[in-house]
Amino acid sequence: MENSVLLPISAADIDAAALVIAPYAVRTPLLSSPALDALTGARVFVKPEMLQRTGSFKFRGAFNKLSSIPQSARSGGVVAFSSGNHAQGVAAAAQILGMQATIVMPSDAPVSKREKTKGYGAEVVLYDRDKEDREAIARAIAGPRGATLVPPYDDPFVMAGQGTVGREIAEDLAALGLAPDVVVAQASGGGLIAGIATAVKARFPQASIMCAEPEGFDDHAISLRAGKRQPHAAQGRTICDALMAAMPGELTFAVNERLLAQGVVASDAEVGEAVKFAFRELKLVAEPGGAVGLAALLSGRFEARGKIVVIVMSGGNVDADLYAKLIA
Amino acid sequence: MENSVLLPISAADIDAAALVIAPYAVRTPLLSSPALDALTGARVFVKPEMLQRTGSFKFRGAFNKLSSIPQSARSGGVVAFSSGNHAQGVAAAAQILGMQATIVMPSDAPVSKREKTKGYGAEVVLYDRDKEDREAIARAIAGPRGATLVPPYDDPFVMAGQGTVGREIAEDLAALGLAPDVVVAQASGGGLIAGIATAVKARFPQASIMCAEPEGFDDHAISLRAGKRQPHAAQGRTICDALMAAMPGELTFAVNERLLAQGVVASDAEVGEAVKFAFRELKLVAEPGGAVGLAALLSGRFEARGKIVVIVMSGGNVDADLYAKLIA
Repeated sequence: MENSVLLPISAADIDAAALVIAPYAVRTPLLSSPALDALTGARVFVKPEMLQRTGSFKFRGAFNKLSSIPQSARSGGVVAFSSGNHAQGVAAAAQILGMQATIVMPSDAPVSKREKTKGYGAEVVLYDRDKEDREAIARAIAGPRGATLVPPYDDPFVMAGQGTVGREIAEDLAALGLAPDVVVAQASGGGLIAGIATAVKARFPQASIMCAEPEGFDDHAISLRAGKRQPHAAQGRTICDALMAAMPGELTFAVNERLLAQGVVASDAEVGEAVKFAFRELKLVAEPGGAVGLAALLSGRFEARGKIVVIVMSGGNVDADLYAKLIA
Repeated sequence: MENSVLLPISAADIDAAALVIAPYAVRTPLLSSPALDALTGARVFVKPEMLQRTGSFKFRGAFNKLSSIPQSARSGGVVAFSSGNHAQGVAAAAQILGMQATIVMPSDAPVSKREKTKGYGAEVVLYDRDKEDREAIARAIAGPRGATLVPPYDDPFVMAGQGTVGREIAEDLAALGLAPDVVVAQASGGGLIAGIATAVKARFPQASIMCAEPEGFDDHAISLRAGKRQPHAAQGRTICDALMAAMPGELTFAVNERLLAQGVVASDAEVGEAVKFAFRELKLVAEPGGAVGLAALLSGRFEARGKIVVIVMSGGNVDADLYAKLIA
């Protein structure tokens, strides 16, 4: 890429992150599904990040970030704010590295995500998503302790860690002698898709990288069209609890506006159908926020027929009662 | 193995099967789970055959068997009897090879398995599991048509096809520089475990291969102890609908009595917990009959601590309502 030196992360940063996380992260496979190929007329590969440690890709970025904290600063611990998957990623990474972790989570986050976060030994502080500012709370906690804040996406180490997803996709496709036409991954703050785009386009410059968002929560799609960061217009909720960031990150968007082809969206109903499809046909447990790209594919939200398409399923941390409703 | 030439299948048969099925079967990955390792104190690898075409390993044996039918006999089609996974495997293989398939299924088989079987273009004939003889029904259908009967396990081509599961396990572990201490897979008629034992022990003669059965339906465990084929004593049902064969197969037991270390069992309650664990921690959709080995591991039914253990999860075809109950 021309001028890639100006972007917040490079493929070399992702190579470095891959080495850092290798001893602890699961190298997830690239799966194929004859049923999905038959249904879409595409050759589809699924990157199942629900199989990652902590049940989502977030462990990658969290572990890479925490590993970058100098020894002298580690005793202060880390503080993060997260609706759940980043929380678990940071908590698990801190546990491995022997650091104390405090996580600021919305009070309406799925119970399973809260419990798992505590299970990794982290302290959980709840806040009201509609009334309180999670960043301010996190900073107030971090300050006196000398703790390091671990941003969920707007950080080069976090982005490079998430980019290892794309690096593995590129590596596995190259081993099969294939080049991807389309790679789709969910965007909330945009760290995952920025990392993936950086890694995949370094090896396959012709690939179209698309971010997937819940309908209405499509701040990336809006921002990509506008050529600058814009908030989404949604007021309510989506079943995609992991994807409710109001606006693309600054660093992530610097990458994404250069490397992404477009944004795609899917409705909550389409996402629910995708979760059910993943249960019935793929036999993978997907959380709603991890299945928006699959939903967009299944709903014909982008042209896939005849193409080599990679769908990143980013997580599987879903409460049993919601899951039971979605697969019924 | 000394005298291995006398057994119904050899590692070379499995090598041949691997070539036959390669264009159509999914080469399933070998997964690791930090959560499972931490819980068991073992280094555990999961072979997730729910990710196989048709949602279970059965496609492998079915496709290998159907491919062995001479062209001159293919127009008569195939007939099989099965509680569900073999049904889907045969139906999908027949569809690919352009053959007609008729499947004799018990009337209490999971609805999802019946519907999927029809979805692959097969004719489904139902019978009463307690009152009718499925083999007799299948033969009565096959005779006049000149159809080929496709046995669920007691057939060298079927066994060799299932053995590709073990071949992939051995190949993937060898690539990691590891040798398995224990490999566990479910047994109903014993075709899967016979194939796995043949392939794994050809490469790793020291590995202990164990078959897993639902408590009470442990005809393999009983037969291995007795040194001859014995029926199990169960009168009722198990949630493991895929594992209700009354007695080991003749050909499969000829292999299994030579190559298996022992049988392990798990109760329906333990199997239910394993299905839930797979949902919560592995993010894999397991059917009860595919999770008995995992249940035995989680319940401490065999010594795993400090060992390299491979757990074959053989299928994921479970009705949504039962699944919702199990994960609740």
